[in-house]
Amino acid sequence: MRVNMARSLLWRAAGVLQLSRSTLRLEPRRFYGQTEPEPPTVIQQHEGIRRIILNNPRKRNALSLSMLESLRENILTDVDSNDLRVIIISAKGPVFSSGHDLKELTSTQGRDYHTQVFNTCSQVMTLIQDIPVPVIAMVNGVATAAGCQLVASCDIAVVTEKSTFATPGVNVGLFCSTPAVAIGRAVPRKVAMEMLFTGTPISAHDALLHGLVSKVVPEERLEEETLAIAQRVCEASRPVVALGKATFQRQMAQGRDAAYATASKVMVDNLALTEGQEGIRAFIEKRKPVWSHKVEKAHD
Amino acid sequence: MRVNMARSLLWRAAGVLQLSRSTLRLEPRRFYGQTEPEPPTVIQQHEGIRRIILNNPRKRNALSLSMLESLRENILTDVDSNDLRVIIISAKGPVFSSGHDLKELTSTQGRDYHTQVFNTCSQVMTLIQDIPVPVIAMVNGVATAAGCQLVASCDIAVVTEKSTFATPGVNVGLFCSTPAVAIGRAVPRKVAMEMLFTGTPISAHDALLHGLVSKVVPEERLEEETLAIAQRVCEASRPVVALGKATFQRQMAQGRDAAYATASKVMVDNLALTEGQEGIRAFIEKRKPVWSHKVEKAHD
Amino acid sequence: MRVNMARSLLWRAAGVLQLSRSTLRLEPRRFYGQTEPEPPTVIQQHEGIRRIILNNPRKRNALSLSMLESLRENILTDVDSNDLRVIIISAKGPVFSSGHDLKELTSTQGRDYHTQVFNTCSQVMTLIQDIPVPVIAMVNGVATAAGCQLVASCDIAVVTEKSTFATPGVNVGLFCSTPAVAIGRAVPRKVAMEMLFTGTPISAHDALLHGLVSKVVPEERLEEETLAIAQRVCEASRPVVALGKATFQRQMAQGRDAAYATASKVMVDNLALTEGQEGIRAFIEKRKPVWSHKVEKAHD
Repeated sequence: MRVNMARSLLWRAAGVLQLSRSTLRLEPRRFYGQTEPEPPTVIQQHEGIRRIILNNPRKRNALSLSMLESLRENILTDVDSNDLRVIIISAKGPVFSSGHDLKELTSTQGRDYHTQVFNTCSQVMTLIQDIPVPVIAMVNGVATAAGCQLVASCDIAVVTEKSTFATPGVNVGLFCSTPAVAIGRAVPRKVAMEMLFTGTPISAHDALLHGLVSKVVPEERLEEETLAIAQRVCEASRPVVALGKATFQRQMAQGRDAAYATASKVMVDNLALTEGQEGIRAFIEKRKPVWSHKVEKAHD
Repeated sequence: MRVNMARSLLWRAAGVLQLSRSTLRLEPRRFYGQTEPEPPTVIQQHEGIRRIILNNPRKRNALSLSMLESLRENILTDVDSNDLRVIIISAKGPVFSSGHDLKELTSTQGRDYHTQVFNTCSQVMTLIQDIPVPVIAMVNGVATAAGCQLVASCDIAVVTEKSTFATPGVNVGLFCSTPAVAIGRAVPRKVAMEMLFTGTPISAHDALLHGLVSKVVPEERLEEETLAIAQRVCEASRPVVALGKATFQRQMAQGRDAAYATASKVMVDNLALTEGQEGIRAFIEKRKPVWSHKVEKAHD
Repeated sequence: MRVNMARSLLWRAAGVLQLSRSTLRLEPRRFYGQTEPEPPTVIQQHEGIRRIILNNPRKRNALSLSMLESLRENILTDVDSNDLRVIIISAKGPVFSSGHDLKELTSTQGRDYHTQVFNTCSQVMTLIQDIPVPVIAMVNGVATAAGCQLVASCDIAVVTEKSTFATPGVNVGLFCSTPAVAIGRAVPRKVAMEMLFTGTPISAHDALLHGLVSKVVPEERLEEETLAIAQRVCEASRPVVALGKATFQRQMAQGRDAAYATASKVMVDNLALTEGQEGIRAFIEKRKPVWSHKVEKAHD
């Protein structure tokens, strides 16, 4: 998968690194800057925590092609840098995301454009699971269709009590078949089926019950609880987290015995890293480990 | 899989279409009518909703071979007709279904008969998931062994608070291995194992907690709540629901990346249907969509 | 997989059969008896119920290589005897098990030793699922890392309210990748991910909610409730339970249609056993079945 990455640095202020999409593109659809006042997403990074904020509340943060491309860039920008340790995806306004922009899905755009939309969307959803840092969804509001898929695709999701989750595509003649890939792997089959066939939203509580989200918190504690998880991730060694995340994805796609063969070898490799040995030494010496975040071998 | 379908229409009354098994069969086991007063199942259809009622309460709605054959026919009769949009399976009497008829499983019947019973049962269970319309179990009472498998196999299950679910085959020396195919794919592994090894029933509440059922309601609201879900399904476009259901089954059997390839293509195909375009146009125009329920292309 | 089995019988007293590891081994690491006062595990057997007790509370029942080898032996000793019908794994002291012994995982031991530790651990975890009798974890306290994996690998887990479950390897630079094989197959993906990335413990209640354990009970009822489940297993026919357990593992690794083909054939085979026919006859005759626990055919 080849992905264009915009790495341009726009401004730094108060210790916050703000990044943005490249502001010069030739294709009209991708053109921001002079003509469009707001980028579809805002990206900030501070002490290892990158925040990506869906930034089109007037359009209910619809995952238009430009929004998806912006998300993809935001996720991939310097993704291999040690400065990045965890990503939080949140949204501006009362709707987390309403899913695809239906105005982009009419016959006028045609098959090729539709294909590009769904391929880009699938790329974003799988990227979230395949990049070396954990991705947390921080949700305060409605997440529907591909918006619900985005929540299901994140590694962790912290949501407020008022948040709801739905796959209502069936109501507009477009069954949520791609959201079902993520949701069907996150919740029990019957829960997914009822959501897909009826489009009825489920509450944050039910989403927690069935594994679609990780934690439900009062609205006033959303930032605090999400940041607490992000900070715990930052306390760990980056290459150890990266190895663990990649291995989880890999072994879960295998049968049990193959999964154990994969994971057992990874444990031995992990122990051969200086980070693995530092962690164990620190534990034995009853002190805090000091991570280098480098991939180096302690022994063969 | 070749299946004989009885399409004979018995009577229409008060807007209700009542269908039944063919009343003339040569095999004695399949012969109903003069000699047997009651068919093993009753089938009714009204405004897109087909109701199949297990109709042998004296035998605790045991899934005898004739009951299974009757169910298979009831499911397959005119299954491709636009008049059929959703199926509700319920039961007469205090027991939803007690599973196989053990009197059919003695040495007297022999291996070939047993094979026919289990093959027919597996056909019914997989048909429920493979036909183009959603199937809802409406349960008010005990569902055990293959009866529990039937609930697990339906797309949606609405059950009363007093309903219970068990796989007690181990107690009669016949481990519930075929029910375990459906139940093991519906609930967490530990829940399935305890049910299978101990035969102990679980409550409706626990069944909901673990994803075996979709909704628990007071007895007096069972019909109303089930019909509300069925009616929501009827408000959708039939070919869109059919495409969505088939795609869900297909992609869930694939790895994540193959699943996204499958589902992304289906989304583009769905958009190329007139139903897909009508739904999106209606949404943009803020009106209710008008479905043709026909499979026609809006564009290539 | 070749496994050394110690079958030596140490003593019988008060109807309790106590077994232990062979007390004479050449390798120093494996040498117990004179020099080491306590074996790493204690094994007792009474009326079909084998109890294996992790017996190193001072070291928080760490799954050292000798503890893992002891467990493997305890599991495999006379595993095919009709005297064995169910295994309960519990632990002495306030910690069920803290996982691997980190002192065994430093560079000093080296890659080959680490490989032996993880291969032995994977063997123990998969053995639990592959032997012909159910294995119940009885947990009263903390279960972390490979200790949590042990709970996840058992068929059934009865735990006290104060028990907690965690995969904190990430904190010591050793991501819990092998525990994730068992835990990722027991609980929803998001629950597993949060446990793995943060190391934060989950309560017994949350473990129950998400399927990691089967039952949460007050501490004073732990023995009674666990034994009640074990006794229910003992009331069943051993070959029927063995066939059911093996079939569950087999069919769950297959696609749905292959799983039904597997399980349907097993049902027919189960009916051809004398035990299957005895159970059904007893049911029809409204009496308790009398099991021989022998694998014999009733018919072809």
